[in-house]
Amino acid sequence: MAQLQRRLAEFAVARDWGKYHTPKNLAAALSVEAGELVEIFQWLTPDESVRVMAGEESAGRVEDEVADVLAYLLQFCEVLGVDPLAALAAKIDRNEKRFPAVENGHSMEW
Amino acid sequence: MAQLQRRLAEFAVARDWGKYHTPKNLAAALSVEAGELVEIFQWLTPDESVRVMAGEESAGRVEDEVADVLAYLLQFCEVLGVDPLAALAAKIDRNEKRFPAVENGHSMEW
Amino acid sequence: MAQLQRRLAEFAVARDWGKYHTPKNLAAALSVEAGELVEIFQWLTPDESVRVMAGEESAGRVEDEVADVLAYLLQFCEVLGVDPLAALAAKIDRNEKRFPAVENGHSMEW
Amino acid sequence: MAQLQRRLAEFAVARDWGKYHTPKNLAAALSVEAGELVEIFQWLTPDESVRVMAGEESAGRVEDEVADVLAYLLQFCEVLGVDPLAALAAKIDRNEKRFPAVENGHSMEW
Repeated sequence: MAQLQRRLAEFAVARDWGKYHTPKNLAAALSVEAGELVEIFQWLTPDESVRVMAGEESAGRVEDEVADVLAYLLQFCEVLGVDPLAALAAKIDRNEKRFPAVENGHSMEW
Repeated sequence: MAQLQRRLAEFAVARDWGKYHTPKNLAAALSVEAGELVEIFQWLTPDESVRVMAGEESAGRVEDEVADVLAYLLQFCEVLGVDPLAALAAKIDRNEKRFPAVENGHSMEW
Repeated sequence: MAQLQRRLAEFAVARDWGKYHTPKNLAAALSVEAGELVEIFQWLTPDESVRVMAGEESAGRVEDEVADVLAYLLQFCEVLGVDPLAALAAKIDRNEKRFPAVENGHSMEW
Repeated sequence: MAQLQRRLAEFAVARDWGKYHTPKNLAAALSVEAGELVEIFQWLTPDESVRVMAGEESAGRVEDEVADVLAYLLQFCEVLGVDPLAALAAKIDRNEKRFPAVENGHSMEW
């Protein structure tokens, strides 16, 4: 992941895109790509959504949007000095305390 | 990252959340969290957005939303069998051909 | 609708919020509120989503988010001089040509 | 607006799209379109965003996305029996009490 983050940073530098890459713009770009991921699923039933990788064209779109979301997430973290893996590990630790496993399925808000 | 993905999967299983975790729902949840990240920045100027980690409260919110976005991205990839790092590496390869570095700054659409 | 648009404009002027209300920021705010609307539905089945107005608390949340989305849409249109009703009427005209009724249900992309 | 809502409902019926138009799916579609609106602005400076209607192509895109957002908002409200103008009027009433004009500019959270 660190290597991908470096490749993305070099890619942006080589194209002089740094001036566009404010945290505000990268957060917006991330949400735009997340919207494009949702678009693939918007008219599908839950069952159809489970089978989305069975079609070559829709599988390709999913992989493409996953790549875009991750690309902007990593670039966002890069410009702000946030470690996304550490942030997630800390969050899982907190949530294991907040939602003990016995309350199964009650709250989906985490 | 694989370890975090496993912890998230175990977390969901222990709480019987699997039935909620269709690809469609996880994509929606990812976009909701991306929206919460945008919310932090929505009224900030570009310059203010660069300094968002200087305030303890806003830094904590950023880390929290980064964790949420990554958590849903990993869970989405898990249920569909998508490798996000491979997807991103393939995308960077393609984009290095599509956007040669000489056209610096012209197109931001990737 | 014109009256609501005027009340929103006066509300913003009275609080000196005009400087925040760039088209870029208002578009972001609109998408944040749309995300909050999605959040209400993210773990619901299609059938549960149909009954969302039956619960007083969830009905109130839906109305609240609808109000927020419309508020930012109207303010966005106001600052850019866009007439949303005319834009929609023109779009429906175009789509009635693009998607003749005989192709029922084939394309959901409009 | 009521007339546009009726045209949208007839349009969907004629194409047998009713089965896709659950509240959950329409909320997702609304957020996807809001994301497409944000996309127009994602790399623009605040000043550039103010001039977006000066370019014919970008002005057309803005009008198109405004139409899409409004179309899904009205269809969402239609299937749930929500009156968006009444919801917004009620919200403005509440906010006029919550944010007295004297506290100008302090809180943008409404």
